[in-house]
Amino acid sequence: MIAYGRFLFKGEINEGYFDVQNEVIIFDGERIPIKAVRFLPPVKPSKLICVGVNYRDHAEEFGKDVPDEPIIFMKPDTAVIGDGDAIILPNMSERVDYEGELAVVLAKKCKNVSYDDAKDYILGYTCFNDVTARDLQMKDGQWTRGKSFDTFAPLGPYVVSNLDPRNLEIKTYLNGRVVQASNTSNMVFDAFRLLEFVSSIMTLKRGDVIATGTPSGVGPLRDGDVVEVHIEGIGVLRNYAINMK
Amino acid sequence: MIAYGRFLFKGEINEGYFDVQNEVIIFDGERIPIKAVRFLPPVKPSKLICVGVNYRDHAEEFGKDVPDEPIIFMKPDTAVIGDGDAIILPNMSERVDYEGELAVVLAKKCKNVSYDDAKDYILGYTCFNDVTARDLQMKDGQWTRGKSFDTFAPLGPYVVSNLDPRNLEIKTYLNGRVVQASNTSNMVFDAFRLLEFVSSIMTLKRGDVIATGTPSGVGPLRDGDVVEVHIEGIGVLRNYAINMK
Repeated sequence: MIAYGRFLFKGEINEGYFDVQNEVIIFDGERIPIKAVRFLPPVKPSKLICVGVNYRDHAEEFGKDVPDEPIIFMKPDTAVIGDGDAIILPNMSERVDYEGELAVVLAKKCKNVSYDDAKDYILGYTCFNDVTARDLQMKDGQWTRGKSFDTFAPLGPYVVSNLDPRNLEIKTYLNGRVVQASNTSNMVFDAFRLLEFVSSIMTLKRGDVIATGTPSGVGPLRDGDVVEVHIEGIGVLRNYAINMK
Repeated sequence: MIAYGRFLFKGEINEGYFDVQNEVIIFDGERIPIKAVRFLPPVKPSKLICVGVNYRDHAEEFGKDVPDEPIIFMKPDTAVIGDGDAIILPNMSERVDYEGELAVVLAKKCKNVSYDDAKDYILGYTCFNDVTARDLQMKDGQWTRGKSFDTFAPLGPYVVSNLDPRNLEIKTYLNGRVVQASNTSNMVFDAFRLLEFVSSIMTLKRGDVIATGTPSGVGPLRDGDVVEVHIEGIGVLRNYAINMK
């Protein structure tokens, strides 16, 4: 599988395309055991556009109607972390939830992309965790504060291109137990429609991310928890939660 | 008055500190009539954090209670334009409003800044127009879409440092007529408190912007309208609205 990303190996940052095969990365002709590398966020987005209530089951979970257009919000780039990084639980919140999601990564600058052309503007797909301070989200009504703490946007481990984003199994594991299990075919608005919609509003740039919403089964993270987002054809984004001291 | 910004003059982009005196800019020893320059956005923010419902009169205008904590949202950097640039009214909206605001510009990277230290982290202040597709804001509930169209974040003309942001007259003019008139002393949360609050959530970087909310008197922009945000001790941010074709 050809992937694009950034990783630390032997003290250096490597960036670009590599081949992932059976727990080995092949990069610049070198075969590297995947356990020997530390992934960095695969891209540095200038913006992350997220979508709320985009799986029918998650809408039911929160007693919300399925919207007739996508509901978008943003997370700041300062929230982005990579695979293996710590999610820091802030003192300000009593309840921080995981939300496993498929992320779409943009290949180039674009505006007003049509559904049919969408795939030409996509670098690929990766795993995302839309970490959310649920109590602050509910209190504010606006979702920005609850979604924007540093470390609240785990992204990775790398970006995979050759996939149909409309039919992928997605699962979230909390301490080894499955807590979310769905398929991207259950999205209300699929990845191409989301790119069409978001790019009708704002210019997108290479490396920008559209997160496509989470299925049902969201729940809280506690100090020491390990959370994993597994997506078929991509891999696993693993992070652990620690309390802010 | 010493200001920081970017401007086009004789076909070149100039950036840095300059002196503004009686319609003249003094930069690199040269006296330039202010009418001979075209301002660019004074900084390139990595993020723009905006605050809703932060003047008591604007809260009344929309029948909202004054919140006990700031309500924040974000605009994308792709929305930023400078003084003299066109605000493009998108086809997707039937009602696009001006919202004149004071913007705080960050001087350096920071997290968890206290109220008393806030001024040490501020590069200065400038005028901002939180252009808003009111119909889409209301429809979505979440404010992001309505606030995020390209050109919806006019910023400028330049950044002024030596000011107390807690007591400045702010006025918005539409086609030469005053439509908003207030003083930043009427804010629910002043500029220093907003920096304390926002930096308790996320890391801020040099050039990042916190927009401090709008007073009452917001209203629609139509094709050909000229909108100006005047702030005491800073100057005038002037933009014109045109329909998207």
